[in-house]
Amino acid sequence: MLRSLRIISPSGFNRTRPRLFSSLRSLTEQDVSHLASILPSTPIISTFSPFNNSKDELDSFNTDWMKKYHGNSTTVVKPRSTEEVSQIVHWCWENRVAIVPQGGNTGLVGGGVPLKDELVINLGNMNKIRSFDPVSGILVAESGCVLESLSEYLAPKGHIMPLDLGAKGSCQIGGNVSTNAGGLRLLRYGSLHGSVLGLEVVLPDGTILDQLSTVRKDNTGYDLKQLFIGAEGTLGIVTGVSILTPAAPKALNNVLLAVPNFSKIIPIFRTVRAHTSEILSAFEFFDRTAYEIVCRHGHRRPFQEDIGDAQCFILLETSGGRKEHDEEKLNDLLGTLMNSEENLITTGVLAQSPFQFASIWAMREGITEALTKEGKTYKYDISIPSGSFKDVIDEIREHLRAQGVYPEGGVKAVLGYGHFGDGNLHLNVVTDGYSPKIASAIEPRIYEIVSRYRGSISAEHGIGSHKTGVLHYSKGEVSRAWMKKIKDLFDERGIMNPGKVII
Amino acid sequence: MLRSLRIISPSGFNRTRPRLFSSLRSLTEQDVSHLASILPSTPIISTFSPFNNSKDELDSFNTDWMKKYHGNSTTVVKPRSTEEVSQIVHWCWENRVAIVPQGGNTGLVGGGVPLKDELVINLGNMNKIRSFDPVSGILVAESGCVLESLSEYLAPKGHIMPLDLGAKGSCQIGGNVSTNAGGLRLLRYGSLHGSVLGLEVVLPDGTILDQLSTVRKDNTGYDLKQLFIGAEGTLGIVTGVSILTPAAPKALNNVLLAVPNFSKIIPIFRTVRAHTSEILSAFEFFDRTAYEIVCRHGHRRPFQEDIGDAQCFILLETSGGRKEHDEEKLNDLLGTLMNSEENLITTGVLAQSPFQFASIWAMREGITEALTKEGKTYKYDISIPSGSFKDVIDEIREHLRAQGVYPEGGVKAVLGYGHFGDGNLHLNVVTDGYSPKIASAIEPRIYEIVSRYRGSISAEHGIGSHKTGVLHYSKGEVSRAWMKKIKDLFDERGIMNPGKVII
Repeated sequence: MLRSLRIISPSGFNRTRPRLFSSLRSLTEQDVSHLASILPSTPIISTFSPFNNSKDELDSFNTDWMKKYHGNSTTVVKPRSTEEVSQIVHWCWENRVAIVPQGGNTGLVGGGVPLKDELVINLGNMNKIRSFDPVSGILVAESGCVLESLSEYLAPKGHIMPLDLGAKGSCQIGGNVSTNAGGLRLLRYGSLHGSVLGLEVVLPDGTILDQLSTVRKDNTGYDLKQLFIGAEGTLGIVTGVSILTPAAPKALNNVLLAVPNFSKIIPIFRTVRAHTSEILSAFEFFDRTAYEIVCRHGHRRPFQEDIGDAQCFILLETSGGRKEHDEEKLNDLLGTLMNSEENLITTGVLAQSPFQFASIWAMREGITEALTKEGKTYKYDISIPSGSFKDVIDEIREHLRAQGVYPEGGVKAVLGYGHFGDGNLHLNVVTDGYSPKIASAIEPRIYEIVSRYRGSISAEHGIGSHKTGVLHYSKGEVSRAWMKKIKDLFDERGIMNPGKVII
Repeated sequence: MLRSLRIISPSGFNRTRPRLFSSLRSLTEQDVSHLASILPSTPIISTFSPFNNSKDELDSFNTDWMKKYHGNSTTVVKPRSTEEVSQIVHWCWENRVAIVPQGGNTGLVGGGVPLKDELVINLGNMNKIRSFDPVSGILVAESGCVLESLSEYLAPKGHIMPLDLGAKGSCQIGGNVSTNAGGLRLLRYGSLHGSVLGLEVVLPDGTILDQLSTVRKDNTGYDLKQLFIGAEGTLGIVTGVSILTPAAPKALNNVLLAVPNFSKIIPIFRTVRAHTSEILSAFEFFDRTAYEIVCRHGHRRPFQEDIGDAQCFILLETSGGRKEHDEEKLNDLLGTLMNSEENLITTGVLAQSPFQFASIWAMREGITEALTKEGKTYKYDISIPSGSFKDVIDEIREHLRAQGVYPEGGVKAVLGYGHFGDGNLHLNVVTDGYSPKIASAIEPRIYEIVSRYRGSISAEHGIGSHKTGVLHYSKGEVSRAWMKKIKDLFDERGIMNPGKVII
């Protein structure tokens, strides 16, 4: 009973939270004056004297970009160096003041906004690139560097960042690391656990842990930095990142396929891999429902031919070193698919220009926005075996039907899209409006299904404050107990992003 | 003074070790009887009654394959299941008996052999493959599976293991994970921190930590499994591994280049990357000294042309999806290199047959064996910026000259080879025989140099018992203190592989 209460009001305080804050105290005017005096050149925004900023000026720090999570912080500090971060954190440790580390504030689970009146340490001023080695491709950057600005820095040097996200114009590399961001390039370049080579972290007592290695191979003991990748700022504040950047591909191509039904997707995936192997960089899936919604809200229908009752779609992308080789591989692939005896595809489009390339991606990337025009959407970001995507979507749809909320009763559509190649499904339930009845019809059912597949209830979005109550669907009792021990080891006073990830 | 004493006698007990064992007790005959009674079907080899095995029968468990490290264990257990491992470990925890987890015993730093009379838990009987998903390529195997047998299992399914080592015929996947093994495919497929998706671990108190995830993306809290990758069995015993296996490449090619001098290597590396990009799978370096030694000890000289005073050599390998495309890329590359205005290469050989392909690899892989025929070798496995390989080799050589041990005085040759693309240099000092004078001329100088470059004193071999005393050259005080805290958190009784990694 407690569990479902938590789920229905994810942004409210649940009953364990007051305990989290009970040993901590709120910032006072004296505290802010003191911080200002020891950090004379550090920007501070505070409703307290001598700053007297208005509450509105703190809005963008207290609220996430979706306006779903709201905190009541009185004060934001924006340090310019690791030493300043260390001084602030040490002071908070000594005084038992809670901290929320904040990057670009583009998260989806409330990990980067205060729950109460924690001190916000915003890393936006830590935005210097410290070094780049063109031979190894290793970049060392401060945590506040915006992902897109790092990509722009690397472009003339012939390198790219190993991750790419929709939020790239705002998100920061420190936040990417702290949330173990996935994104569109994971299929090709792997996760941050592989590409992050070193971190500099300010620990909860203010100690600086310097593991900012710039070597690719290092086998000297426990790889502590890995703990901070995905810890969402609950174990310390990432201030510097050393990351391996791949050489930029010279040729990019993409293809959109209309597919008769889901049973063809695995044979298609195998055929695609056989033809494109090392140049395959994306294999994205979306179902007919998603396709119709994105077309209804402004996207031009991409196929000239009639696609009949094609039930799903695949967008595949290749990134390679030599254009003509990649095109030859793709043409042969399309020939094989078109002429397959099993009728693998209904039809397909191969982008013939940069405009068409962008347009095909816009179809896939436009789904999120189209959904916002369609209604209010419950969004789930889960990892399950790719072959079960359709079963899970169908099961949820049938469950909602049985619960009497679909197709009448509030739910307009149940649809899926996502990174098929990575086993990451974005399952969406579009409704006329959010309601407790629909919420409790979906949850915890969706998490129970994930648990049955031994999947992940959060493939790439993290836990934040939103999913702490449902963590047990993905992590067993022993794992959660050890997460808690790790939290207590690093942060026995509980000042670092309290109420997030593990409580 | 203490430090250099430790270095000179790496396999002896240093003065901190007795403390490690002081709260632990030795196995007795009663203990072994008890273990046999609670585990009636588990193979046990013991000098104690009722087994009464000879000491010789324990030799292969008490000694590493190089015969460098020697323990005095009386008893080896070879459990067949995770539950059995858990029972044994729990019993050791309750009775404060030290444990050495042991895989294929192919390590180079003494991590897998006892220091005293610890109980050896050998994982060789945990050799079942639990599952393989041909769509995602995710393999779940027990830790005792031999690396080569996993490769053989995957071959007909069109997949390969993401790592390849010289020791593949003996080493086990659990040991690979526990030592964060690198090897020949790292340049292409990345480290185990990226490709290992899940682990099952028996913790020091016998608890089973089940993080055997089979999803590629999972963002639900701290990634605890990462701590066990490279922990060399000091935090728990890996019993199961979930790992992402890449699709097998369809075309393999290699090229051997003779290079006038080291200053050409970086321009060559850039040219190679520009031409081969995503199909490049190895870029191995060795110097003229290494070349001459390997040729002296039986390897046929590979070049038909005169290579003059070429000072170094590059072996590059490509692994791609389409033979004719790869060959076209390689031919264009060789044309560019041959005709470069900067005279980048002296000459080159492109393998024309599987036999030539193997022969070129045999040249590079034969260095280790040739060195054993040349004399006694001090071997260092370090990570430094690739561009400084020659400087470091030269600096050590000149230092040994200044110390009066080279070219007369015991040192016959100083040479280097390794994974240029990964910044991993194998630096070797060949001598007439091991001597304290030479040892103290090399160490700690070599580690000081690594430290100056912020490199790693152990790129891929680990710490084991051999390098605990020099860990500080790569890991700062804060890092070491936190490693110790992690060790104490997981293993407060200190039973798990004592004296290894962090002491």
